[in-house]
Amino acid sequence: MSSQLSPTILTSPNAGDPVPDPRLAHPANPKLPSTPPPSSSTFTLSFKLPDFHSRPPSPSPTSSVFSYTSQDTMTSSTSTRASARPNPADVAERDYFSENPPPATLEAHTSLAKEFIDFHAVAGRRVVLVTSGGTTVPLERQTVRFIDNFSAGTRGATSAEYFLQAGYAVLFLHRQFSLQPYSRHYSHATDCFLDFLHEGPDGSVVAKEEYRAKMVTVLRQYHAAKAKKLLLTLPFTTITDYLFVLRAIAQLMRPLGPRGLLYLAAAVSDFFVPLERMQEHKIQSTNATDASTPEGKGSEEREGGEEEEVFDNFDSSPAVPRSKRLIVDLDPVPKFLKNLVDGWAPEGMIVSFKLETDPSILVHKAKYSLDRYQHHLVIGNLLATRKWEVVFVAPGSRDQWIRVPRSKRKRTISGVEDLVGAAARGGEVGDEPLDPNDLPDGEPELEIESLIIPAVEALHTAHIHGPRKREI
Amino acid sequence: MSSQLSPTILTSPNAGDPVPDPRLAHPANPKLPSTPPPSSSTFTLSFKLPDFHSRPPSPSPTSSVFSYTSQDTMTSSTSTRASARPNPADVAERDYFSENPPPATLEAHTSLAKEFIDFHAVAGRRVVLVTSGGTTVPLERQTVRFIDNFSAGTRGATSAEYFLQAGYAVLFLHRQFSLQPYSRHYSHATDCFLDFLHEGPDGSVVAKEEYRAKMVTVLRQYHAAKAKKLLLTLPFTTITDYLFVLRAIAQLMRPLGPRGLLYLAAAVSDFFVPLERMQEHKIQSTNATDASTPEGKGSEEREGGEEEEVFDNFDSSPAVPRSKRLIVDLDPVPKFLKNLVDGWAPEGMIVSFKLETDPSILVHKAKYSLDRYQHHLVIGNLLATRKWEVVFVAPGSRDQWIRVPRSKRKRTISGVEDLVGAAARGGEVGDEPLDPNDLPDGEPELEIESLIIPAVEALHTAHIHGPRKREI
Repeated sequence: MSSQLSPTILTSPNAGDPVPDPRLAHPANPKLPSTPPPSSSTFTLSFKLPDFHSRPPSPSPTSSVFSYTSQDTMTSSTSTRASARPNPADVAERDYFSENPPPATLEAHTSLAKEFIDFHAVAGRRVVLVTSGGTTVPLERQTVRFIDNFSAGTRGATSAEYFLQAGYAVLFLHRQFSLQPYSRHYSHATDCFLDFLHEGPDGSVVAKEEYRAKMVTVLRQYHAAKAKKLLLTLPFTTITDYLFVLRAIAQLMRPLGPRGLLYLAAAVSDFFVPLERMQEHKIQSTNATDASTPEGKGSEEREGGEEEEVFDNFDSSPAVPRSKRLIVDLDPVPKFLKNLVDGWAPEGMIVSFKLETDPSILVHKAKYSLDRYQHHLVIGNLLATRKWEVVFVAPGSRDQWIRVPRSKRKRTISGVEDLVGAAARGGEVGDEPLDPNDLPDGEPELEIESLIIPAVEALHTAHIHGPRKREI
Repeated sequence: MSSQLSPTILTSPNAGDPVPDPRLAHPANPKLPSTPPPSSSTFTLSFKLPDFHSRPPSPSPTSSVFSYTSQDTMTSSTSTRASARPNPADVAERDYFSENPPPATLEAHTSLAKEFIDFHAVAGRRVVLVTSGGTTVPLERQTVRFIDNFSAGTRGATSAEYFLQAGYAVLFLHRQFSLQPYSRHYSHATDCFLDFLHEGPDGSVVAKEEYRAKMVTVLRQYHAAKAKKLLLTLPFTTITDYLFVLRAIAQLMRPLGPRGLLYLAAAVSDFFVPLERMQEHKIQSTNATDASTPEGKGSEEREGGEEEEVFDNFDSSPAVPRSKRLIVDLDPVPKFLKNLVDGWAPEGMIVSFKLETDPSILVHKAKYSLDRYQHHLVIGNLLATRKWEVVFVAPGSRDQWIRVPRSKRKRTISGVEDLVGAAARGGEVGDEPLDPNDLPDGEPELEIESLIIPAVEALHTAHIHGPRKREI
């Protein structure tokens, strides 16, 4: 093992160094193609659209399945199912990966992941890839503004701890500066770090007595995971970062066969701004006197004639002419679960999450996803109740809600047959979702991931021992 | 002093409690008006537009200057400059604050701020409001997606420490979970918290020796600021949170007269989605068969006839019909510096920041802002070089770049007359910006805020001793 593989420590923190900025992964990616600076009065994005329909299919018989080589580079290889006419998912994948630059960290991160996975593959250990936190969609190449997805990373970071408890090796692919296993207990407290500490004798720094016992427990678990090389954490920021590294890691997990588990808890962007439409510089809140967009905006709607009206910083006019608004036009992110299931990690078990805010569509959407991609489990959850209950939607099983009892005092076990073993661990199961209005204030006493992970583990065991359904 | 005023500790961290989520301030604000759930096939935002032009001016002679009362409520009062016809800035302000709900925490936070400010006003101490971090713009009422502004909070958190060193009381208004003074040295390290600690004798938790010396220094500074009640930290998340609390605090700072300083380093959204156009639930990535927008989207551009094509999760088609894209239509945020300068905090010194990515427009935009709002200082900075140099643009002074020397070894003092005293503190000054390509890799050895704050302090001293330019 190389000394580079120090799981969870990609960069040793050095208290003497300046602290790196969150989201500073690629504020000005030098690999991005340069464009001439636009006029400062342009504020809408341009609308040059790729014509996907008219693009001829590639004459090459190679599919877009990529393989990882020992040279740490991504190379195209002919898949075992290569055909003369690539399917649309392959075309979408190839276009996305060819039109967007890979993250600068891709090689370094895939190298760490390969070492980690190979180490555990040899040991015959189960390995789970946990993705966690939200991906961003930059609105400018030199990114000042971006669209984000609500996620603190609680589900992923908490799940990772329970996977480690269950004996898995955990590859934790997370949004930079989102919650991480173990440190999550402290990193997003209202006042990070310093309030847990005080000055001890002889200029030492020690944990305050009221926090000591829990901190020792957390520290021991963390150090045990590190010592056994059971945890590797890798960060991402943008949707493009995420998709590149997800593809690379999924392919690296092939040697694990069915012992590989992909637990996709990240909140992944559905829409993005294609690079070719992305403005180089910060979008200006200014009169778009030269704007001409395909939205049919007529010049009569624009406000003209204001001298040096750049509408910057602080404007005193309540009028909102069309020309002062910002229109962001986003394309759908090509969807990759089909490739993940069929091509990237064909033997592994794949669990995806479905987050909705509207209770009436959650289960429908989970089933639709499962039917379409033929993977193994969709865990559905609602924004308002996600720490209290989730629904397991799996092929051949009845949908089952797993939930935290409202309180230790009020805990009841329902009469519903418990397919996922949650009741035995202090949870409840049911056929129907809770009414959010019935929930108590505050956080549940029990982390629902302590119920989710053993249930997933049981399904994974069945997956490992079951018939191989797909060829590789 | 009430025991509530425990600066920097709004909620005591309790290691036994679950950690709160970032950005969970108001994921489903109960005060937001409810709307019927939209059809699941709707994915564009609706486009019902307010007609600001045709709205008659309010017949009320009251202006929109609000005052803070001892009952902790915001009430409208007649300003000393009330006129029969409110000016457009007042109308924009009134509309914004009446059409968007105040944050649930407004009363509690203004109460803490009032106690803090009054305490230091009596002592004759200078008080600075430092705003820090980015504001968010939610895209849905039950927010899954939002637009964010790039900012870790480094400028604000670092500046706050140097203001405390200079003897200021600091009210630190920051994006929740962005960097904070003192804890910034540890909170956003690659592995938060736990890597700085190990288990000591008898089950104690102590800082590792290599981090101990710096940690003791930071801890002492932090505890000194707390003990002297010199630091109050208040969080915000959305642009609306920010504007409500900024207005309230600025008005509370009036008793400070010219000893009040507003140092507006937050990255504030320029565009937002008005509540009336905001969808209740998560925007669906689905066929918008019922979409009809004013962009002139014709039905011939829509793709129809796909059965149960909800285009969810993972789609295999590379085609991007118009109906599968997301159009986000944003209004400009009403600009508030005019009200801040003239009405909210008329005697205080006001410093704003201007962040750009295009060097060719930075100084122009800084001057424009200063000319328009007649405040005291704009500190301009470029995304790529912001930790190395800033430009001070102030009335009656030559624009001056202040920068960190490239290295201790290479430090040179330029021949330019040093108006801001930066050279005496180890910095450089100049008339022109750096070429970003000339910068060394990594972080500067000196924090540029150690140069900025003394320069601002000197200008603030001049402001306090200078003639009162505006009436209150």
